[in-house]
Amino acid sequence: MTKLSVEHLLGIKYLQKEDIELIFQTADHFKNVINRPIKKVPSLRDITIANLFFENSTRTKLSFELAEKRLSADTINFASSSSSVTKGETLIDTVNNILSMKVDMVVMRHPNPGAAYFLSQHVDAKIVNAGDGAHEHPTQALLDGFSIREKHGDLKGKKVVIVGDVLHSRVALSNIFLLQKMGAIVKVCGPLTLIPKYISSLGVEVITNLKEALNWCDVAMMLRIQLERQDTKFFPSLREYSMQYGLDKALLDSLDKEITVMHPGPINRGVEITSDVADSKQSIILNQVENGVAIRMAVLYLLAGRIEQ
Amino acid sequence: MTKLSVEHLLGIKYLQKEDIELIFQTADHFKNVINRPIKKVPSLRDITIANLFFENSTRTKLSFELAEKRLSADTINFASSSSSVTKGETLIDTVNNILSMKVDMVVMRHPNPGAAYFLSQHVDAKIVNAGDGAHEHPTQALLDGFSIREKHGDLKGKKVVIVGDVLHSRVALSNIFLLQKMGAIVKVCGPLTLIPKYISSLGVEVITNLKEALNWCDVAMMLRIQLERQDTKFFPSLREYSMQYGLDKALLDSLDKEITVMHPGPINRGVEITSDVADSKQSIILNQVENGVAIRMAVLYLLAGRIEQ
Amino acid sequence: MTKLSVEHLLGIKYLQKEDIELIFQTADHFKNVINRPIKKVPSLRDITIANLFFENSTRTKLSFELAEKRLSADTINFASSSSSVTKGETLIDTVNNILSMKVDMVVMRHPNPGAAYFLSQHVDAKIVNAGDGAHEHPTQALLDGFSIREKHGDLKGKKVVIVGDVLHSRVALSNIFLLQKMGAIVKVCGPLTLIPKYISSLGVEVITNLKEALNWCDVAMMLRIQLERQDTKFFPSLREYSMQYGLDKALLDSLDKEITVMHPGPINRGVEITSDVADSKQSIILNQVENGVAIRMAVLYLLAGRIEQ
Repeated sequence: MTKLSVEHLLGIKYLQKEDIELIFQTADHFKNVINRPIKKVPSLRDITIANLFFENSTRTKLSFELAEKRLSADTINFASSSSSVTKGETLIDTVNNILSMKVDMVVMRHPNPGAAYFLSQHVDAKIVNAGDGAHEHPTQALLDGFSIREKHGDLKGKKVVIVGDVLHSRVALSNIFLLQKMGAIVKVCGPLTLIPKYISSLGVEVITNLKEALNWCDVAMMLRIQLERQDTKFFPSLREYSMQYGLDKALLDSLDKEITVMHPGPINRGVEITSDVADSKQSIILNQVENGVAIRMAVLYLLAGRIEQ
Repeated sequence: MTKLSVEHLLGIKYLQKEDIELIFQTADHFKNVINRPIKKVPSLRDITIANLFFENSTRTKLSFELAEKRLSADTINFASSSSSVTKGETLIDTVNNILSMKVDMVVMRHPNPGAAYFLSQHVDAKIVNAGDGAHEHPTQALLDGFSIREKHGDLKGKKVVIVGDVLHSRVALSNIFLLQKMGAIVKVCGPLTLIPKYISSLGVEVITNLKEALNWCDVAMMLRIQLERQDTKFFPSLREYSMQYGLDKALLDSLDKEITVMHPGPINRGVEITSDVADSKQSIILNQVENGVAIRMAVLYLLAGRIEQ
Repeated sequence: MTKLSVEHLLGIKYLQKEDIELIFQTADHFKNVINRPIKKVPSLRDITIANLFFENSTRTKLSFELAEKRLSADTINFASSSSSVTKGETLIDTVNNILSMKVDMVVMRHPNPGAAYFLSQHVDAKIVNAGDGAHEHPTQALLDGFSIREKHGDLKGKKVVIVGDVLHSRVALSNIFLLQKMGAIVKVCGPLTLIPKYISSLGVEVITNLKEALNWCDVAMMLRIQLERQDTKFFPSLREYSMQYGLDKALLDSLDKEITVMHPGPINRGVEITSDVADSKQSIILNQVENGVAIRMAVLYLLAGRIEQ
């Protein structure tokens, strides 16, 4: 396989296993590139990419921008948190206007689930979904999968538990799709008020006890608690949450084996995980960030490659 | 003619017909460039351009930035909506400081009419007016004129009606100057509360009935209703406005001939024009956006060319 | 001496006289570069620099960005004024995340004194302090010293008076360190409520009468009154301040000799100095701005040079 089966990266749901493997292999190459003294390649020299962020995102935005610069693409940035530009026809207008300026690809973060898909149906450019509401965040799942593969050699048969607020997490959903496609076994762990009802229909088992979940897994993916999204009625207090579902060094050391700890960042230190866990040898959190640039280079490169034909 | 008769682009008012023709011919060239696979030229490789936006403007700002990148210029961006940096000596200080960093050209949007002119009298750099209050927006008029020329072959003798809030529109004023200089016939159409009293002194006739105006013209330029600028006392309600001066498909199809529809964007769909009109074959709205980059490349190139001498 | 004795530029306090001389000589070279038609050099072509501004700063930020572009570095910009990202471990997390994306140098402005030093102890990158609270602003002092040297040939033996709000000024503190290291004689002048008590321990004499101070000095460095930082209880009113410590043309012309006038900007015209003083031949304010880019190029170049080894 030398090209993707899709024209856009809208979600992991739409990818085949072979697409994911191609992205991983391409990212292997780019990871070598960005660890050389000369970190730039001319691959996308004549491609213009618009980064449209209708929601705040420091880290994902910086990571995409760096990926684009390493590929020598030209970029334009558009950031807006006002709701005036976000819906339906107005969104099409905004993006069509930008495309009329001869932009080849659009990287978009948007608060509405399905916004990237909707856009791909109505405008004539490659779309990369950089997060659409609580729906999908495909490049995050790709970099997470890539980081597990880097540490453990292969995803097939690996046991991964996703811990925390699965209900509101696009990171969780994209990771479930990706890990299952690649042959890993996924379970989730968290208070039942933060686990979506449809989870069993995805073939994902729920474990409510954290220690039991950790003793089962090879890899623990700790989700960020996004306080601003919580429904306070059902949610345990932060202190309760931290006591029942926070990971500290004592708990980590009490396990039967040495598991790998991941977090998509930014960390609420002392809530989901303590500082000594985040900075421990079992944590691959900074590898995830580093791999993010390589994965995004791979995605942009592979999608743009189709343009050239 | 191989160079402009002006040192700055402050307004269409200050241009000769030959200047406009030179800009159009240069934009023809750059439009070819940005439609090639390789969209960049090294023309302004050693020029630094400061984009100073003292007022919000997503589209004009992106268009200038892309034009500058296509020309290989270096750019620095300064955006501020705080009134603290906008007036008189403070404005001179701000700009002089930026120029001391060896900046060659300044693209400025400013809420005060005359701000670009004022600046050109006090600082030593090429100034491009990207909109100064309700005064002028010369690159918009240039791209509009260029788009009519592209569609109709020539501006001479063409009948253009500008519809809507002419009173508060720098787009209207710059277009009236440009179209008249190029030999087109311009009329305006809108509620009398939104037509400036001095309009007849410019030799521009007013038509209050939209259908009559459209039946007269070759090209209808629909202005954006800028709700934030309206004096609510005199203004018809949005619904009344839309009923009397909005353009829908039924009205468009009822006309005696096939007119060209333009809009400077962003569109309030359903207010000035309906979606089916905006997306119809008679609409050249996205061509306007595309031509904006070519026109701005031409303006920057021609003004900078004088620096080299 | 061909390289700096330090790995970071945290403050003038940590520099040796030879470091400062090396930076000045390197800036001499870059000042020539930016006054050529071709203002760019490829020196830092494969270096990525992150500009992290946790506090607003138009001028310093633009100056660093231009210096980086002239050196052909890649840059990423992060601006935040929210306090959520500013403290201790969170700051380390934020910066480590950015570094994981393979960033080589960090230019940081931060409201907390010591933030740059703290960071240099915890992350693995070259740090340039672009201002840390009321502590130090080393590149400002370097460009000030460079500008005096340019005008007066040498700093040794020159008499410099720093006028105004010394208490809250990182510019003053960095300048005192630099000027003393280079053999200049420094005094301060201002209302006693705005002079720190420790000033005599630095070997700096206080003169409360402005005319007396100006008659003594070769160079007067007028500080900006930062109204937002004043403790209103002890501070004279703006009008009183301006009358006692403001410099107007009449006062300047009444002095026994022709002194040099400096200001770090942005000027409150009519408060610290009047317009005719700012724009007079004795003022080197715009030279300071121009030299800022050359100094920052020199600092970035010299620190990055150590990376290559």
